[in-house]
Amino acid sequence: MKTAGIVGLGLIGGSLARDLAAGGWRVLADDVDPGTLSAARAAGVVDAALEPSEIASLDLLVLAVPVRAAPGRIREIGRSLPPGSDVVITDVGSTKRSAAAAARDAGLASRFVGSHPMAGSHQSGWSASRTGLFDGSPVWICPSDTATEGAVIAVEQLWVGVGARPTPSTADAHDRLMARVSHLPQAAATAVANLLAAQHVDPRHLGPGGRDTTRLAASDPHMWTDILLDNADHVAPLLADLADEIATLRALIRNGDPEPLQARIASGRTWSRTP
Amino acid sequence: MKTAGIVGLGLIGGSLARDLAAGGWRVLADDVDPGTLSAARAAGVVDAALEPSEIASLDLLVLAVPVRAAPGRIREIGRSLPPGSDVVITDVGSTKRSAAAAARDAGLASRFVGSHPMAGSHQSGWSASRTGLFDGSPVWICPSDTATEGAVIAVEQLWVGVGARPTPSTADAHDRLMARVSHLPQAAATAVANLLAAQHVDPRHLGPGGRDTTRLAASDPHMWTDILLDNADHVAPLLADLADEIATLRALIRNGDPEPLQARIASGRTWSRTP
Repeated sequence: MKTAGIVGLGLIGGSLARDLAAGGWRVLADDVDPGTLSAARAAGVVDAALEPSEIASLDLLVLAVPVRAAPGRIREIGRSLPPGSDVVITDVGSTKRSAAAAARDAGLASRFVGSHPMAGSHQSGWSASRTGLFDGSPVWICPSDTATEGAVIAVEQLWVGVGARPTPSTADAHDRLMARVSHLPQAAATAVANLLAAQHVDPRHLGPGGRDTTRLAASDPHMWTDILLDNADHVAPLLADLADEIATLRALIRNGDPEPLQARIASGRTWSRTP
Repeated sequence: MKTAGIVGLGLIGGSLARDLAAGGWRVLADDVDPGTLSAARAAGVVDAALEPSEIASLDLLVLAVPVRAAPGRIREIGRSLPPGSDVVITDVGSTKRSAAAAARDAGLASRFVGSHPMAGSHQSGWSASRTGLFDGSPVWICPSDTATEGAVIAVEQLWVGVGARPTPSTADAHDRLMARVSHLPQAAATAVANLLAAQHVDPRHLGPGGRDTTRLAASDPHMWTDILLDNADHVAPLLADLADEIATLRALIRNGDPEPLQARIASGRTWSRTP
């Protein structure tokens, strides 16, 4: 029987714990909220609390904490891990560069393989976790240059075992792409929601389309503050571009000529319908 | 047996025709595309093509055409309708002021009651139409000051009969609200999609949240050009505000202080979770 340690029992960590437990792993876990840890133990998902001294003997340690908390945890582990341990370490964060840098600094690069399952939503916390969350989801696997083949395979197998589809990448390419496909839409949804809040609009008046566009605004503010700040160098220039594109649409609407406006709407449609 | 005329067999007009036919109405229809009209007749939804001379003897005429085509159709009907006809006229457009103004100009204000079912999506056309589309949907009912009580009741009953929930409003209040809950999210989705298209991002890399935020970008460009131009006086200032809000988020991300950024994300979340 393999033993996994999971730090953080939120939507991702909690769902992974559920799937691993259902798949026959022994799961030890830690969470900042003692109530969450108790609930996970009572649900039969977590066998026991994860003690720092037990990390060395785990098969796999998964850090499922906010992205700006991960580097500190990795450095801590680097300081305390005894020589000879072959625990493989991964994380599940939406950004991959800072955790990888921390693993390098902590001397853990050979055993650290970052991962990012694309299974998040606007929901969060243990109460939102469920079995099967990763079934069919893409998961980015971002090993450092010096990660051992064994560590990479262990992390890939972890995800395949819960139904996810691993795709290899580098931390740099991952963070650049996520700024575009995930962090930009999140910021746009928040901006629309903030504007409607400032205008005292009742959200119950949203139609299905307006609800789609603003759904991400309900995401966890702490988690997203971390992600946006951790990926600021990629996200900030995109937000400047987005403000420019909105200014362009506004100018076309004020101008009143239908053809260039229709062409602009059509270009986004063509992109979004790319098979 | 009541007879309805439906001009335009797109998502809304086509779905209404299906529900009315299923509910025992005789449905006459017109569409710019002869193939669509043939398909609707072959499906047993439409009894026959709607001839202009038949409008006077209909119980109800529904204009389900792009919002900037409706005023012209209304003026045309005003010119050709013989005295003594008591056909009630409605439309289904996403803006309500311009059709109401056209009805006033055409001498049809007493029998014109605008409506707007909130059942649209990014899909469009006869091929997307279906029975039951309006089941449980809010529908705005915007009669002019001089509409007869009989006309208002006829239009309300039309929508109740297909499962929608009528809410009375004025054309002015409706257009102001729709700019916020519908037209602004549409423009935001288009802007995000255009930016990602310009950056050559593969849309298959979007996660569930990014797909939600950009879903409306797949909407019909002609229909949305009409709506955004017809409601330009409300929409353009909101887009200026949205560009400002995005610039504020960008400044907070560049600044790096987590507290004000988290507060800003939290305010949108609080709004979007208002019960």
